[in-house]
Amino acid sequence: MDAPGYPKTTLNAVNRYRNRGKYAFEDVYPIFDAAPVLHVSFNDPSADHAQSYPYILPMFGCTGSYRQDSADRAIYLHGYISSKFFREANESTEQDGLKICVSATLLDGLVLALTPNHHSCNYRSAIAYGEAHLVTDEGERFYAMELITNNILPGRWENTRIPPTKAELAATGIVRVDVKTASAKVRAGTTGEDRNDLKDESLRKRVWTGVIPAWTQWGAPVAAPTDRMDGVPDYIGGWIRDENEKSEAYALGAAKPV
Amino acid sequence: MDAPGYPKTTLNAVNRYRNRGKYAFEDVYPIFDAAPVLHVSFNDPSADHAQSYPYILPMFGCTGSYRQDSADRAIYLHGYISSKFFREANESTEQDGLKICVSATLLDGLVLALTPNHHSCNYRSAIAYGEAHLVTDEGERFYAMELITNNILPGRWENTRIPPTKAELAATGIVRVDVKTASAKVRAGTTGEDRNDLKDESLRKRVWTGVIPAWTQWGAPVAAPTDRMDGVPDYIGGWIRDENEKSEAYALGAAKPV
Repeated sequence: MDAPGYPKTTLNAVNRYRNRGKYAFEDVYPIFDAAPVLHVSFNDPSADHAQSYPYILPMFGCTGSYRQDSADRAIYLHGYISSKFFREANESTEQDGLKICVSATLLDGLVLALTPNHHSCNYRSAIAYGEAHLVTDEGERFYAMELITNNILPGRWENTRIPPTKAELAATGIVRVDVKTASAKVRAGTTGEDRNDLKDESLRKRVWTGVIPAWTQWGAPVAAPTDRMDGVPDYIGGWIRDENEKSEAYALGAAKPV
Repeated sequence: MDAPGYPKTTLNAVNRYRNRGKYAFEDVYPIFDAAPVLHVSFNDPSADHAQSYPYILPMFGCTGSYRQDSADRAIYLHGYISSKFFREANESTEQDGLKICVSATLLDGLVLALTPNHHSCNYRSAIAYGEAHLVTDEGERFYAMELITNNILPGRWENTRIPPTKAELAATGIVRVDVKTASAKVRAGTTGEDRNDLKDESLRKRVWTGVIPAWTQWGAPVAAPTDRMDGVPDYIGGWIRDENEKSEAYALGAAKPV
């Protein structure tokens, strides 16, 4: 039986390099959760379509399910309440929501082939289309704040001053994107070459080919001048070490021939 | 005299944390050129605005100026010709172009404050709004292919099998975005805290605060099975070393109190 996922439609189908397309929840959600920053696109609903530009905002967010009634998750986004995006999401009716697109991209390496045209990159990317709603339910708001904080750095929420004050809560906007459809696209592996190029031994001796692995590296923590703790706690130091090891291992694995 | 840049308008103005907004070309362009991946958003011009979702594509690209008649640059994007985006850009008339938004984001660190609400990140982000045109002029197409290839890895273009074949050229789409307006937003520095939290000495002893620097790390190159070169050439090995050093130094510098 297939893993639960999004049916392929004209909206979410991967058309170029179809074999890189993935639609199962278990393939799509981890990419949104692993990307340190999400890119969110939306239109101003009041503007004339042909005359206006779409917006993109880089935001913090991750997948979650406040009402655990299905394997299907929403995407929660976090931001300052009066920003353009949250205004639009708020003004859209609760029923309709604001139509948005959320993108997550992890670059895993540069793929250097014999000719520029065959250059590529290793990556994990995911895209979701859905309706954005400003969350007003206090329980769901707290759920999402903790979820997003701990998705960035596990254990951080409970190791800070919580709960937020009333003023902080009033200034914090949480948006839930009810995902209509989504998909992922993943490339891993070594170079792909033109057959004629491979026959050219002198070319192959002259042009280096292979993969330069890439990942997000976290450096040694720099304490704030106002910090009074004795050293860096384990949940931070251990996370940095583990994340770096995991990310490097993935990028190196992806760089190898399959 | 101010450096040349984009006039502040309702479209490009940074409204939240205004002091982070930058509008000079010299502040905006390097962010687009440094980001390994750009996120590009556009609408299907034939669809009903209220009923359709914007799209986001992660793409390779950078700034450039084929006709060197001003300090003002375009953004060149690279992709497979038959993809949805290039179809839209092609179908838009040469005069109007397809209205798109291009976003570049460099994450430089996580900023961990005493309370989740004051958490932030260090980043350099840029956003551009403009009209996308499929480039048909052969000279400009070659200019852009070399520009984009060498922006990713300096010296790569001339160290590969060039020029591309006719079939490769036919399959490669180059889009020029004539930038109407753009801006950058940059955060650097240590934590910002609530004044009341800072008065709480026991809180400050209990919660670690500071910055975890972050950057894109390039790993040791993994040769393709078809590679016949003797070792990794200097323009690749040196670039990896220099980029890692530069990126780490920037993130560490940004993490320090200003």
